[in-house]
Amino acid sequence: MTTIDDLPIRDELRGKTPYGAPQLDVAVRLNTNENSYPLPDAVVDAIAKAVQAELRDLNRYPDRDAVALRADLADYLGHGLTAANTWAANGSNEIQQQLLQAFAGPGRTALGFGPSYSMHPLLAQGTGSRWIGALRDPDFGLTPAAALAQIQEHDPDLIFLCSPNNPTGTALDPEVVTAVLDAARGMVIVDEAYAEFARPGTPSALTVLPGHPRLVVTRTMSKAFGFAGGRLGYLAADPAVVDAVQLVRLPYHLSALTQAAARAALSQRDALLATVEAIKEQRDRIVATLRDRGRAVADSDANFVLFEVGGDQKIVWQRLLDRGVLIRDVGLAGWLRVTAGTPAETDAFLEALK
Amino acid sequence: MTTIDDLPIRDELRGKTPYGAPQLDVAVRLNTNENSYPLPDAVVDAIAKAVQAELRDLNRYPDRDAVALRADLADYLGHGLTAANTWAANGSNEIQQQLLQAFAGPGRTALGFGPSYSMHPLLAQGTGSRWIGALRDPDFGLTPAAALAQIQEHDPDLIFLCSPNNPTGTALDPEVVTAVLDAARGMVIVDEAYAEFARPGTPSALTVLPGHPRLVVTRTMSKAFGFAGGRLGYLAADPAVVDAVQLVRLPYHLSALTQAAARAALSQRDALLATVEAIKEQRDRIVATLRDRGRAVADSDANFVLFEVGGDQKIVWQRLLDRGVLIRDVGLAGWLRVTAGTPAETDAFLEALK
Repeated sequence: MTTIDDLPIRDELRGKTPYGAPQLDVAVRLNTNENSYPLPDAVVDAIAKAVQAELRDLNRYPDRDAVALRADLADYLGHGLTAANTWAANGSNEIQQQLLQAFAGPGRTALGFGPSYSMHPLLAQGTGSRWIGALRDPDFGLTPAAALAQIQEHDPDLIFLCSPNNPTGTALDPEVVTAVLDAARGMVIVDEAYAEFARPGTPSALTVLPGHPRLVVTRTMSKAFGFAGGRLGYLAADPAVVDAVQLVRLPYHLSALTQAAARAALSQRDALLATVEAIKEQRDRIVATLRDRGRAVADSDANFVLFEVGGDQKIVWQRLLDRGVLIRDVGLAGWLRVTAGTPAETDAFLEALK
Repeated sequence: MTTIDDLPIRDELRGKTPYGAPQLDVAVRLNTNENSYPLPDAVVDAIAKAVQAELRDLNRYPDRDAVALRADLADYLGHGLTAANTWAANGSNEIQQQLLQAFAGPGRTALGFGPSYSMHPLLAQGTGSRWIGALRDPDFGLTPAAALAQIQEHDPDLIFLCSPNNPTGTALDPEVVTAVLDAARGMVIVDEAYAEFARPGTPSALTVLPGHPRLVVTRTMSKAFGFAGGRLGYLAADPAVVDAVQLVRLPYHLSALTQAAARAALSQRDALLATVEAIKEQRDRIVATLRDRGRAVADSDANFVLFEVGGDQKIVWQRLLDRGVLIRDVGLAGWLRVTAGTPAETDAFLEALK
């Protein structure tokens, strides 16, 4: 039988395994920061209707520039943004891949502050960019001084910030973003996949966009919108950045069905985002309960909680799975990440962890 | 106002414009090789039902490996293929991008025989692969001797063949594929986007797959299936190739809606592919009529025809557009490409060209 090793694959891929959490059929799935709430019937109906309207003409290519969807995304974000400021793709992974293709790539470098979203270095590798693994502070925060020292040392072409940061939940003060923009010559990507879950008083980097054409804020509909299966990521930036990613995007990358479904979901955003407060309550309950039990827990502005297990996290992860609760081992020794879901899921997790 | 030139974009992208044919609102659109027939009502209903069944659980990520869809694609292709032999993505562009990421990329080369699909060199550039523009024979064919000489000269890591070839319509004898496989050390991609339109007696490279793990056949549902708006490309190859692309694919790249819609379309394939014979008739009619008028016309096994205009193709293209018929200037001096659509569209094109 032929194996990968028999093929002329790139050397750096040899011995690797595909990225991704185990997709296991378990009662309580709190491992990929999905929104635990199924879509309400009214939203299902609205999306079904919007998709159905596209089907007869599916023989035609979709709008390559997804202008109507981008206008709707801009309207949702506010901050005076328009379609010219936004761009959409099949998940924020594809958005970030396009940004790396345009602004990093072979002979260039991308830097991120770990622990952070583990796809960032993989996307860099996949686009031929050299990855520089800089570090967050020991408390998972990132001070301007610590960020600037590492940027000055490495002079990267592209910088990933992540706020609220996955897997720690830590939000970044916008003044860190402006300090990084001032210190760096390259592009600065702020990955705000979890922005809607931030606690009051945590501003988005969208507030920093005016006057900063090297800043890009990426978002997703996978989390707060409960649209993970629909795959819709997007960015907000200066229109010149949107022009730039159009030089590297695959033509017709976003299907007519995706565009229609995402627009319908955006039109139903009050119903969809109604789950956010309930999820934040469970997040805060997990943080408080685990702290009451004497565990170290990272502050969280996201829909998940990173907590110290007091021992080998692999063993604890397996024990929880044995009790029907699937959470995430992000490869951080002694820590595990749990998604905040429904009250019943929180009950099951807290009980299983005892 | 900030422009692309003010951004730290990659040098080779400076001054470039995004790939893509003009999306113009014209009565007769024969420029992107779409299937001119809207989807039949029964197919619309089947897809609508399949998509609707996914919507409630859209808060969950889709099957990352799209196993059920891949099994359906294998069943459609036949040749003893199974899900392990197939892989799917958002259009065959994404499939080919993944293949380049895994087998070409920075420090490696990709070779294609032009004139051919103009995305192949752009995909190579987008993945940091060095592009080698080899040449087809003057009659748009490709003999084993001509192919081998150029392969031996350049020793590429990845080779694109295209059959039926876009934009010429020329099919490739499978013995050319085997000769190329024997002569090359790298991967050989046969782009068969238009395979369903081939004339009788034109075998697919699928027949060559057994015993050739370096061969990959890519297909799309955009053309014969009339599913351009749904964005579904796929490949057939040795299972080891599928393992390899999984190392570079973006996780959850294919939405639950795309997977469900494509499966429903495949289940309705008799109805969808019923248009193929009608389109082939129009293709043959265009070839015959233009030859009757004394024009040079390339043999076509696809749903389009490449013909010599006898002068500056840019001027002829504009004159046709002025008469409401949009066809494609593929940048080949003196030639234009027209899609074979409905009988009425053929009438309009042939009349406008007079």
